[in-house]
Order: sequence, then structure tokens, then C-alpha cells
Amino acid sequence: MRLSRYFMPILKETPKEAEIVSHRLMLRTGMVRQQSQGIYSWLPLGKRVLDKVNAIIRDEQNRAGAVELLMPTLQSAELWQESGRYDDYGKEMLRIKDRQDRPMLYGPTNEEMITDIFRSSVKSYKSLPLNLYHIQLKFRDEIRPRFGTMRSREFLMKDAYSFDWTKEAALHSYNKMFTAYLRTFDRLGLRAIPMRADTGPIGGNHSHEFIILADTGESEVFCHKSFLNRSIPSVDTDFDDVDGLQAVFNDWTSDYAATSEMHDEAAYDGMPEADRISARGIEVGHIFYFGTKYSEPMGAKVQGPDGKEHLVHMGSYGIGPTRLVPAIIEASHDENGIIWPASVAPFDGIIINMKAGDAACDAACDKIYAALGKAGKDVLLDDTDDRAGAKFAMADLIGVPWQVIAGPRAVANGEVELKNRKTGERETMTIDAAINRLAG
Amino acid sequence: MRLSRYFMPILKETPKEAEIVSHRLMLRTGMVRQQSQGIYSWLPLGKRVLDKVNAIIRDEQNRAGAVELLMPTLQSAELWQESGRYDDYGKEMLRIKDRQDRPMLYGPTNEEMITDIFRSSVKSYKSLPLNLYHIQLKFRDEIRPRFGTMRSREFLMKDAYSFDWTKEAALHSYNKMFTAYLRTFDRLGLRAIPMRADTGPIGGNHSHEFIILADTGESEVFCHKSFLNRSIPSVDTDFDDVDGLQAVFNDWTSDYAATSEMHDEAAYDGMPEADRISARGIEVGHIFYFGTKYSEPMGAKVQGPDGKEHLVHMGSYGIGPTRLVPAIIEASHDENGIIWPASVAPFDGIIINMKAGDAACDAACDKIYAALGKAGKDVLLDDTDDRAGAKFAMADLIGVPWQVIAGPRAVANGEVELKNRKTGERETMTIDAAINRLAG
Repeated sequence: MRLSRYFMPILKETPKEAEIVSHRLMLRTGMVRQQSQGIYSWLPLGKRVLDKVNAIIRDEQNRAGAVELLMPTLQSAELWQESGRYDDYGKEMLRIKDRQDRPMLYGPTNEEMITDIFRSSVKSYKSLPLNLYHIQLKFRDEIRPRFGTMRSREFLMKDAYSFDWTKEAALHSYNKMFTAYLRTFDRLGLRAIPMRADTGPIGGNHSHEFIILADTGESEVFCHKSFLNRSIPSVDTDFDDVDGLQAVFNDWTSDYAATSEMHDEAAYDGMPEADRISARGIEVGHIFYFGTKYSEPMGAKVQGPDGKEHLVHMGSYGIGPTRLVPAIIEASHDENGIIWPASVAPFDGIIINMKAGDAACDAACDKIYAALGKAGKDVLLDDTDDRAGAKFAMADLIGVPWQVIAGPRAVANGEVELKNRKTGERETMTIDAAINRLAG
Repeated sequence: MRLSRYFMPILKETPKEAEIVSHRLMLRTGMVRQQSQGIYSWLPLGKRVLDKVNAIIRDEQNRAGAVELLMPTLQSAELWQESGRYDDYGKEMLRIKDRQDRPMLYGPTNEEMITDIFRSSVKSYKSLPLNLYHIQLKFRDEIRPRFGTMRSREFLMKDAYSFDWTKEAALHSYNKMFTAYLRTFDRLGLRAIPMRADTGPIGGNHSHEFIILADTGESEVFCHKSFLNRSIPSVDTDFDDVDGLQAVFNDWTSDYAATSEMHDEAAYDGMPEADRISARGIEVGHIFYFGTKYSEPMGAKVQGPDGKEHLVHMGSYGIGPTRLVPAIIEASHDENGIIWPASVAPFDGIIINMKAGDAACDAACDKIYAALGKAGKDVLLDDTDDRAGAKFAMADLIGVPWQVIAGPRAVANGEVELKNRKTGERETMTIDAAINRLAG
């Protein structure tokens, strides 16, 4: 992408309303823009990161055997009356009447709707296990939306729903998502720690929040320091291996980790002081097993091998992509801007033309840009006539993994400078060497 | 994808409520499910097609230089009061009050919001031309939603918005989208004819609807038969070539084509009778040039090279992916089911295991499935224990381009049968030959 043809409205001033660094950086880099309270547009740079986050989530959901669909944002109130949850959300639920005066709502979550889809078409235990997910907008009318897209009212959520005909099988489904989440957060460059959690209006008694540690986190969390180095299940994980996934779950829940609502001071204090971590955390995922909480009032049953009808055991599994983006920034930035993990960077790199309009600089930049494009790399070419200092600052601010700096003197020698955004290391090399290095 | 692990709830009966063939087939194949009046879930099979349609739209928008972002579904009423359009949509606009009693709405379109984004960050003609688009849910509270997702209330729309500082440049931007739309529909397997159109609540005086001819279309259309064979702009089209794109526009508007609202009977009757087509049509895209209709009330201006402020000239360009899916089915089906164009088929093909559980059949199917997966093909493997007739009927019904039929007798000879869904041709060949044929 040529910057001269792109839309990336960088702010010169740090926006005053932003209280935390991710919010400041997302506004400054023109990743998002607030449209009304707690409601954001994702501008092109932000949309690219969001797409990459979604792609990783989707990949790991599919790997774990979940199947993607897409439910609508608006739901009929009837479904929620059926489950008995219509009043649980209080004013956080955005209630709407359509032109026929029918009561509807903007879905804050989809347990009811997916249970309705399930009961209308699945009749036999032979169709199980089943895990259906979508990545869809939700709305929760928070009284105090804040921190940008970290806590917005309209937000994107990946929510998966598992169906099994025994509790035992349902816990295996839970472990599949537990394992998929560990892999997902790791690929996003985050160290997320599963912690025993309260279940709130979703319900159930077996639930984990995935928390990343960050000073700006909204909740207080307590855990054993072993979690910082625990190994992540590999890409070859067999999701049908019941014992194998139980071992992953056991490993990742063997040491103490809890949010403040579930905190057990005695257990925590029982650990050696050097092993204790007391910190602030950001919730980036939440998984629930809630048995028959929805299948019972809504009559979601399958015929078992015994010929009898069984209520299905369900779980739900949520990740918020629009919250993950700022969470990644909270975990990875410096005083000059964002430092994107390569897996979610909006561009693989940036080519900085230090003298746009100079024939040699233009030719060198075009050559590198074309060669990397051909190699499947997605590169931003700064071909604007901004001054050098502004270009360097912008490149650091948007934080793509590497920068190719093409100035007239170096280019006259057939060379460019390569800078690693994370380490700050710079290296001068020939244009061809730079292409070879980056195309790999 | 193994069918035993997939969610594809095929209906045995033809649903009575469905009046047109695409609606019937989308319900029967379990592509969609109605959740409330005019509001649909896209089940896994439908979601796959929708994703492929979106990918083609996106690819052609990007090729034409448009830049993707994502605006929210909910908008503040204020913006619409500013443009003077708050009342234009009447009851079709879903009006909402949030917990603070602020008036909001579920966006039926985004001219106001994009103009607001533009005016807040673009100040100079040097940033133009600019075309921003998103693929986002919209809501129009139609009094009579019908024909499934062909006319639903919650629907997906790709809407692009162009900004230029002269009318001349704006018409080039219009021609870019005109050309991109011709390419997009062609890649979707559709012959869409641009017709002069009424502009309704969007406004402006230069507008074309893209119409496909289908007996079940809602509007009456009239055109010259030359459109059925006119050539489509190539993949190498240079979108910066002002004269080249004007020539495409001139070519595609040189013969008579109009919807009934814009019909000129005298001009139509002036054509030789053999050249006239009078038919029903489905609108699959609509593009508008409306000059300063929004930039003027909302104050969207840039500084020109003359140092003066100029109101920007705008256009908007819509395609409805959730309507395109049924439109493709209307254009491509037979009495046995859907016939997907390869570009949007939910799977590249299906492997039918005629005797699941038989070691030789299972091994043959697994071998083909693995080899094609490795070759990057996305294949459905029917590994269920349904009877042969049901499997054949289902494969024809869901209409993926080819079927590999692995029965015990053929497999014993190291062979399978290959069936082309569109032509019905069947051919027996070795397993390796089938893999080579399909992996290409």
C-alpha cells in the first residue's frame, strides 16, 4: 500500500480524553475513531489488525473442531423470556421496538439463539459433539464505557457454544476450548493466564477467565509465577485425545490463579513469597460450562443410544477481538509507539522514501516494494513528501516490525538501511540483500 | 471437512413459506435459518458462500483503489439531523434510545458517518482522491420483508464512499466503481446490466443500478440484448486511466437499459424488436454520484491548490452480499438443487463414501481427502452412514462443482467415479487420476 493513497489520519497531539496508553496510541495512529459514546469506527490501520486477530482466532477455533456460522445482531425478546434471562441484563441490554411494536434487543450474547438453532435441527446423540461459533457484533449498554475499544458498548465477540449429551463429554469440549485459547493468545503474542472466575449472568459453576497482566488492567488478580513460563500446547495437539487435553487443563490449573472475586487468601499466602504475583489484569477471554441451564428451559434434547431423550450439556466460550487489540498494545509498546507482534502487525514492514520525487530514491523504493509484494509481503510505502523526522516518528509510532530506510546517499551506493522496530537495531545493506532478508 | 463433524441441517421437506426457488434451496440446504421476521442466521454452509462473495467484492474494491475500514452499526441521530435526512427514511429506519435516553439508530446506510470521518481528518486536496468502504450489517425495517435474504431487514452491505475536490475527478471515481462492479459480478458468475436508475433517499442525479435478469425479480426492466454478450474489463484494467475507464462506461451505457421508473418507451420502441429485452430483474448493486449533497450541510471541505476551500464531491456505491447469494442461486440451479459457480461454491467438491465403515472405501476416501486438502482444496467428505440415494440427492442439492463417488466395487479396482454437477457427466478413473484432475 502506498501511503499517498491510504487513509491513516495520524494525530499530532495526544488526545486528552484517553486515559490509558493503548487508547492514546490507537487514536494517535488513526486506528479507531469514536463515533458516539463507546461506539467506534475501525479506520483502515485498525481494521487490518482486527482482521489478523480474527484470522488467528478463527484458525484455532477450526483446529479445535468448532464450526463457524453467523447469527444476527438483533434478537427477539421472546427467546430471552423463554430462558428466563430477559431481565438479568438490566439496563445493559439495549431493548428495541420495531415498526410493528415487537420487542427486540441487540444481542449481548447468544446462548438463547444458538440453543434455538440446535433444538430445531439436532435430534440424535450421533450428531454430537458439536461446537458452533461466530464472530459477531454485540452491544452492552455499559453505564461507563471507557478506555477506547477496551470497554466499548458496540464490540466484536467470538462466541462459541458446545453441545454434548453427557457432562463428561461436555468437559472434554470445555478442555478443547481451554486449549484452543492458550494457543490463540500465544499466537497473538500474549501471555494469558487462566483463572477461576465468577460466572455472572451467563451462569454455571465451572468457568475460567483468561487474564493478561497489565498495570492498566481493571481487575486485581493473584497467581503463581510459574504461569509466566508454562509451555503452550503445540500445533500438533490432538483435540480428540480426551486424556491429553485433560492433562493440558490439569497442568494449567495446578498452580494458584484467581481473580479478586474468587480469591482465596489462605491458599495464596500458603505459597512461598517469591512465587506470588499480585497484579492488575485484563480479561481477554472467558469460558463457561453451564450444563443444562439453557437446554432445560428451552427443551434442547437429543435421543441417546439408550433410546431415551437427554437434555444437552452446554458451554460457551468468548473472546473479544476489539478488546484484544488494545490489550496487545498494553503489553507491547514503548515511548515511541506501538511494537506489533509480527502475527498481528497491520503491515509486515514499511519502506521509508527519504526523498520522494528523487528519481533514484523512487526507483529503489519501487523496486523493493514490488519485490516484497511479489513475495507475498504486505508492505506500506511512505511515498509522501513529509520531512524525514516526521517519517521516522510515524514509522515508530505505528510500530510495524521492520523499516527499510531509503535515503539519497545510501541509494547512490545501491544500499538501504534496515531497522528493527523492536530492538532498534539498524543495519546497512545492499538493496538486493534487504529484499532477500525480508522476503523470506 | 468431514460431514460427520459438520453442521448442515438439510430439510427433507420443501418449506412452505418460501415463494422463490433461492429461498427454498437456501432453507432446504441449511444455508440460512430465519430467527425472526426478516432476520436470518447464516448457518455454516451459507456462511462459507457469503465469505467467498465478500472476498471477491473486497478484492475488486481494493484493485480499484478503495480502502477498507469498519464503521459501527449504531449511529447517533444527531448526524442525520445535520444532513437533514433524519426523517427521509420514515419507519424503515430503526430508531433506538439508549439508557441515557439519547436518540440513536441502526444504520440503514453510512453517508453521514463517513462524511463526518472525512471532515474530521482530511484537509487538503492532496489527500484526494479517496474512496473508503466497509462491509457491515445494515437494518431497514421493511414493512414486508420477503424472499429470505433477498429482502431481509438485517442485511450485509458493502458500501463505498468516494471523495474528490472536482466534479470531473468525482466522475472518474464513479467510473472506477462502475468498472469494479462489472468485474465483481462477472467473477460471481452473474451477468449484471447497469441501468439508469432513480436515486431515492440517497440523492443525486447520476446513478446506475446493476440488474440481473431473473423471472423472480421484483422489478420490470428493459434493455438491449447486446448486454448479454458485452465484454468485461480485464484484470489488467488501469484504474488510473481516466480515458480508459470513461470508454468502459461509454461502452456499457451506449445501448438502452432502464428500470421501469426510468423507462423511456419511445427510446425502447425505437430499437429493432429482435434487440429488445423486456424482463424482470433483481437489483444487485446501486451506485450514485451526488456531488455536494452531504458535504454542503456537513461542511466537508478541502483546501485546493488555489488556497481556497472547496466542498468535496461525493459518490456512494452499494452491493448487498446477503442478497447476492440468493441472486446467484436464482441464476444457477436445476430441479435437483443449486449449481454453484466455482468461485463461490461452499466447497470445491464432495467425496461421497458409498459404504462408510468399509475399510477399503474409508481408506480410498481418506486418501483423496488428504491429498486434495494438501493441494489447498476445500472438500466435504460425506462419511455418514446415510443410504446411497440420500447421499446423491444431498450432493446434487448443495451443488458443489464436482463429486467423487467411492463405491466398494470401483474402489476394489482402485477406481472412483467423478461427476460434474453442472453437466451431469460421470467418468470412472483411478484414484490417483481423480486426485490429479481435481488438485490442479
